[in-house]
Amino acid sequence: MAWHATFVTLYPDAFPGVLGIGVLGRGLREGDWSYDVANPRDFGVGNQKAVDDTPAGGGPGMVLRADVLAATLDSVEADRRPRLLLSPRGRPFTQSFAHDLARGPGAVFVCGRFEGIDQRVIEARGLEEVSIGDFVLAGGEVAAQALTEACVRLIPGVLGAPASREDESFEQGLLEYPHYTRPREFEGRAIPDVLLSGDHAKIAAWRREEALKLTRARRPDLLRAVQSGD
Amino acid sequence: MAWHATFVTLYPDAFPGVLGIGVLGRGLREGDWSYDVANPRDFGVGNQKAVDDTPAGGGPGMVLRADVLAATLDSVEADRRPRLLLSPRGRPFTQSFAHDLARGPGAVFVCGRFEGIDQRVIEARGLEEVSIGDFVLAGGEVAAQALTEACVRLIPGVLGAPASREDESFEQGLLEYPHYTRPREFEGRAIPDVLLSGDHAKIAAWRREEALKLTRARRPDLLRAVQSGD
Repeated sequence: MAWHATFVTLYPDAFPGVLGIGVLGRGLREGDWSYDVANPRDFGVGNQKAVDDTPAGGGPGMVLRADVLAATLDSVEADRRPRLLLSPRGRPFTQSFAHDLARGPGAVFVCGRFEGIDQRVIEARGLEEVSIGDFVLAGGEVAAQALTEACVRLIPGVLGAPASREDESFEQGLLEYPHYTRPREFEGRAIPDVLLSGDHAKIAAWRREEALKLTRARRPDLLRAVQSGD
Repeated sequence: MAWHATFVTLYPDAFPGVLGIGVLGRGLREGDWSYDVANPRDFGVGNQKAVDDTPAGGGPGMVLRADVLAATLDSVEADRRPRLLLSPRGRPFTQSFAHDLARGPGAVFVCGRFEGIDQRVIEARGLEEVSIGDFVLAGGEVAAQALTEACVRLIPGVLGAPASREDESFEQGLLEYPHYTRPREFEGRAIPDVLLSGDHAKIAAWRREEALKLTRARRPDLLRAVQSGD
């Protein structure tokens, strides 16, 4: 079975969106991964098929109903896939999280909208809250797409060259070294000599040093995590 | 002038994507914000209109050429907008960064693809590297969409109720308290009594306490940042 994503969303038209282009789109067409959507609107209550209501205790905005979202989730085939709720309150998503998810059968991504979703369905259905960063979106759809892209590109065969992952940012706990290509000179700026030397050991040492320098300057927190064995 | 985004991308069809739905889509149609795209393919070199080449010093993948990307950027109207390169090596994007960007005239988002882009164009064109999180994507498009969504929803008028932002995650340095709505009981789980009490002071105190508890449990780093005045 190919890796499978289910997006629980009030906006099915948002998919595949960016997931339909480039290597992700090719992987989708070639069956390396697949997706479907489940729309809470199909489980709305009353004549209006309402999916939301005002917050208990007052306040602005609307809250997605627990019963409506539970019915939507219960319509998704029960399997071993984790159910992730995209939320700024969640566990920060990282590259090692992406590796874990990519090795599994896929995921159910619950995309919130409005002010939030009823806390009781989070608990009753065991949703794991996951965050892509310390900022607030209008809905979980773009976050679900980012997580899916980070996972699917790790599935064997989706990227052309598996070797192209080893030097990437975070794979060694470091940010990635700088890249150069033709032309040899651009607006008076030359490619560093060492990269044109043909000396593979020296090139590898230079890249490692550049990655270390960059990480030290921009993200010393990553170096501390490596040193403490996190 | 409405807030304006320019997406520098090899995949113009990825836009508006998720930005065309919900409150973002409505804002786009109503002129609260606008966007255009610039495609490096239009500035490719040689008969093949090549945009990339092999990395100097060897290694897997392809690198986006400095001259091609520079020509693309130079075709974008010169104005006060910051030029942001979406990259896992960049400064982490946060809610306060979103506020800063939303107050300005917009942004130029450079979406990388392939192994990376030539370091010299980053320096020569003063691109600021920005990251949405510690994970690697197949391209910058979905990250650019996430940043745009985080900014545009802060533009006055895009969200219905401006008050709905004050209690959000990060606005007070805390994660947001839990939400509840009808029905009053869901699978044996009741809405907390205090929220049905009608006592606004008690409700506010309860929400503040829940937000603190949640932040302490999940993200003590945010509390430390508040206390140290970061």
